[in-house]
Amino acid sequence: MATELRTVLVVGTGLIGTSLALALRRKDVRVLLADRDPGAVRLARELGAGEEWQPGGQDDGPAADLAVIAVPPGQVAAELLELQKRGVARFYTDVASVKAEPIEQAARLGCDLAAYVASHPLAGRERSGPGAARADLFLGRPWAYCPTGEASGEAVAAVLRLIELCGANPVEVDAADHDRAVAVVSHAPHVAASAVAARLADASDVALGLAGQGVRDVTRIAGGDPGLWLGILSGNAAPVAEVLEAVSRDLADAASALRALAEGDGTAGGEVTQLLKRGVAGHGRIPGKHGGPAPAYVVVQVVIGDRPGQLARLFQVCDEVGVNVEDVRLEHAPGLPLGVAELSVQPDSAARLSQALVERGWQVP
Amino acid sequence: MATELRTVLVVGTGLIGTSLALALRRKDVRVLLADRDPGAVRLARELGAGEEWQPGGQDDGPAADLAVIAVPPGQVAAELLELQKRGVARFYTDVASVKAEPIEQAARLGCDLAAYVASHPLAGRERSGPGAARADLFLGRPWAYCPTGEASGEAVAAVLRLIELCGANPVEVDAADHDRAVAVVSHAPHVAASAVAARLADASDVALGLAGQGVRDVTRIAGGDPGLWLGILSGNAAPVAEVLEAVSRDLADAASALRALAEGDGTAGGEVTQLLKRGVAGHGRIPGKHGGPAPAYVVVQVVIGDRPGQLARLFQVCDEVGVNVEDVRLEHAPGLPLGVAELSVQPDSAARLSQALVERGWQVP
Repeated sequence: MATELRTVLVVGTGLIGTSLALALRRKDVRVLLADRDPGAVRLARELGAGEEWQPGGQDDGPAADLAVIAVPPGQVAAELLELQKRGVARFYTDVASVKAEPIEQAARLGCDLAAYVASHPLAGRERSGPGAARADLFLGRPWAYCPTGEASGEAVAAVLRLIELCGANPVEVDAADHDRAVAVVSHAPHVAASAVAARLADASDVALGLAGQGVRDVTRIAGGDPGLWLGILSGNAAPVAEVLEAVSRDLADAASALRALAEGDGTAGGEVTQLLKRGVAGHGRIPGKHGGPAPAYVVVQVVIGDRPGQLARLFQVCDEVGVNVEDVRLEHAPGLPLGVAELSVQPDSAARLSQALVERGWQVP
Repeated sequence: MATELRTVLVVGTGLIGTSLALALRRKDVRVLLADRDPGAVRLARELGAGEEWQPGGQDDGPAADLAVIAVPPGQVAAELLELQKRGVARFYTDVASVKAEPIEQAARLGCDLAAYVASHPLAGRERSGPGAARADLFLGRPWAYCPTGEASGEAVAAVLRLIELCGANPVEVDAADHDRAVAVVSHAPHVAASAVAARLADASDVALGLAGQGVRDVTRIAGGDPGLWLGILSGNAAPVAEVLEAVSRDLADAASALRALAEGDGTAGGEVTQLLKRGVAGHGRIPGKHGGPAPAYVVVQVVIGDRPGQLARLFQVCDEVGVNVEDVRLEHAPGLPLGVAELSVQPDSAARLSQALVERGWQVP
């Protein structure tokens, strides 16, 4: 079968390369591992991600059905050219988080674009390197792929098979559209979170003492590795800049309107309201857990003590009454060993769950 | 005893007023309810928040030990003046989210500042009105109070007793400091989240399809009620504007640096890195669950199926091996009925928990 992948070569055994190697090994695909850093290959191999690639002569024919180039965006095209010159695989893809520039570079360098389909799994972790790899990193995640007009049907089929083997959801998208998309849903939000968090660096201890869940959520991703993120942002610089300019403008306008309000111009509130309303509209467009629009779960709140066994007993009750918990959030109670668990459940389960909890002595406010 | 609160008058039975009335009722405090909207008082009463206030003559003496003014910031001072003229309570506080302006207005109007201590519980919900009230809304939350130099010791003690009865943590803070603090940890982050979410309103369906957990967290609070938030922002306009101007400037600078990078100026990355690093520093200052600095929990990841009972069994294992789960997050797997539970535990518990889970057949990547 044209799309069967018996052997896959993974070039670059960082977080993404090693994770997909692990996923392929689970499906009994033979995986060959390569990295400029021999230590990274060794660690990946020890984790069970495959065997070290021993490049043979060109006469041996392609070593792999598919070569996956898992290196930083700026190095993808050069790596592709070298691998194609050596004829190491029948088909090629990459997994960099930026797509337009590597494809353009590959075209300029004269790579064989019939055998190459660029792709990008939308998955990551706050940690990096092969040691952080997980076979299930791509499970249920979107995986963008960007075939050019020159890509062969077989090359596309090979990449689709890779995505399928990793348990991800293929999303076909034009490279430039992809880059604009990740700028707005990933790269620019990261920088915005950093800018909000940066204000906390200079804030008073009193201010930090008044911090609640809202600012925790807004700034969570700001804890990511600056070096890694500079690489991502640099590779998608223009689309990210465009989004950041728009966000910056909106915030400057909101600030001006608030200044006018502070000076007694009551009409200035309209502009702030418009921004808040656009925010509500945008927030409402984010798909929910299962890919569709966010379902209207009902949140059941339960007061819990901070000691072992409480959550087990709580979920035991959910189980007993046959209620599926779609999401759970622990509301922190700064300074007190108490908190509130917020259980998201289907609307028709909420009353049943609340009643069952109350009957068993739980405090359901 | 000077600080005992036998009767409390709550003026304004919205979310905050009704919630604190419910909390006081649990402690057997007599609560009198008032609101300009008779429907709101009726609903609060039906929820068990207290009895409707029947104003008597001035000769009857103060009806309450403490009056809590739970109205929008712009109406606090006028309400305080009216209540004090009628002598309805021995002491007075308010619970508005802005503090400097109401206090200044009260001074200008000639209110009795010896009997008044402004305060602000740092608690809220995305829903509003008496129907969303919860007796435990303030449990473990910070509650700022801002005594002026004129406030009597008895007035301060009365407010401290209120905070204690509601289960919150009192934080004494100067009014202007309070307003700057909430601007940076609450009000400005809300507007920033709205501005990021506003970009999603115009984004392509493809872009939304590539949205992950990061942008979900950054924009969660952007779903809040625009009308309510305009009121909050208007009342703290200048401090919020100052923070937003700084965030806007940082984002504009990052955008310029990225534009320079896109045009080949490799030195421009330094500015972006600086912002990302300041973000990491600020993020690291947010206190953790128990009020101190965020402890270094270790995250144990477990693959879970999307069916009833999975979480109960998972927490059962934690219980069996005596591991306390400090926090839990469900990683959504868009499009697939699978996910990853991330359990935050003490560093010395992680290995034990992982081993126990693996032994019982759980997939711990």
